[in-house]
Amino acid sequence: MLKALIFDVFGTVVDWRSGVAAEAKRFFDVKGIGLDPFEFADAWRGEYQPTMERVRSGNRGYVPLDELHRENLDIVLDRFDLAGYFDAADRVELNHAWEKLPPWPDSVPGLTALKEDFIVAPCSNGSIALMTRMAKFGGLPWDAILGADIAGNYKPREEVYLASCNALRLEPSQVMMVAAHPGDLDAAKACGLMTAFIPRPLEFGPSHENDPQADHHAGMRRRDDWNYTAESVKILAEILMA
Amino acid sequence: MLKALIFDVFGTVVDWRSGVAAEAKRFFDVKGIGLDPFEFADAWRGEYQPTMERVRSGNRGYVPLDELHRENLDIVLDRFDLAGYFDAADRVELNHAWEKLPPWPDSVPGLTALKEDFIVAPCSNGSIALMTRMAKFGGLPWDAILGADIAGNYKPREEVYLASCNALRLEPSQVMMVAAHPGDLDAAKACGLMTAFIPRPLEFGPSHENDPQADHHAGMRRRDDWNYTAESVKILAEILMA
Repeated sequence: MLKALIFDVFGTVVDWRSGVAAEAKRFFDVKGIGLDPFEFADAWRGEYQPTMERVRSGNRGYVPLDELHRENLDIVLDRFDLAGYFDAADRVELNHAWEKLPPWPDSVPGLTALKEDFIVAPCSNGSIALMTRMAKFGGLPWDAILGADIAGNYKPREEVYLASCNALRLEPSQVMMVAAHPGDLDAAKACGLMTAFIPRPLEFGPSHENDPQADHHAGMRRRDDWNYTAESVKILAEILMA
Repeated sequence: MLKALIFDVFGTVVDWRSGVAAEAKRFFDVKGIGLDPFEFADAWRGEYQPTMERVRSGNRGYVPLDELHRENLDIVLDRFDLAGYFDAADRVELNHAWEKLPPWPDSVPGLTALKEDFIVAPCSNGSIALMTRMAKFGGLPWDAILGADIAGNYKPREEVYLASCNALRLEPSQVMMVAAHPGDLDAAKACGLMTAFIPRPLEFGPSHENDPQADHHAGMRRRDDWNYTAESVKILAEILMA
């Protein structure tokens, strides 16, 4: 019987692109930088998978995502020729952008409803520190913080899903992974977890809404692969608690 | 600057003795067992420190407290000649008593207030699974679940306090340990954390209220040793947020 739902967070529960762009814009405005803050957010996020892959492949020991974001910030500031505008304190502060991400409108009501009957927790690549601060910023009512820090590795490595189930003392079959990304669900499913897909057509901005390769289209084409598909966390709660 | 408060839980935040006795009584009533359920609760808790000590001393690898409680349940059932009354399923169910502990009356309002300005998290020897279910039972509004599971060891080993700070990416000086037990605070203080003592004269029942050796008296005698002493979590919140 289903006991817990664990969530991908960046893209699935919160709108990282708008949140990072808003923080970048705050700095750009003060410093008179004309760069599109969404382009900056996309570039910063673009470094995400390659950096984690070094950890997943064993070429680097586990370091929390906060540190990878901080290193990647240096890379993208250099790329846009903005290094001279940001001193060390600015960089530390801007790096906290990843803790200030707005939840999608259905996330808080959906999690609040699900929390009545189930344990709800993030199973994100973000650290406990990052997820805890993000939850306070956006009012995400998590019961516990699981994910990469618990496992000392990054999704989609199987130990992240299994360590999260184990921390709750639940069998994978009692836990449902909820994500907007088919690859995340494939990995959770391979570990024996239940799966729910939530399309997030605006994750990468309006220009990706009609991209046939985007996750929201790919996931919908494969909807029979998941136990549930729902348009929002709130609708998933309605389905599971009906 | 203070950013987070981490809490001892058994005794400090919840009344383990009443909660375990209530669950034991529920079984005893059904099975026609005449034993005082408080005596049973005290005996079960009595096995707590010696079992953890084997882990702390390195004589046994880390196992979550749920499993130690379960093993200790067998020991105390044998001691009271009750083994024949409890089959395997009964024992699993009774072991969940440790997740059904009532908060002291000030705990939920106090934590709710503190959560406005600080990160609040358990730093208990209970597992993530145990603490998560207890929080749902009693409405404890934790921001994250820290403690023994994060460190793979038991308090008062220093790694438990340090791993909890580290998981939040905070320096020990930015974190306050809150406990009803002087030994717990001594260990946290030695790691550089701030400390707050909350006396809980009823932790071991009314007959211990006047015991001069009990923690609530010992801690009050040493009140200059802690950064703060407060009669309740609610009063601690009032002091810190004044």
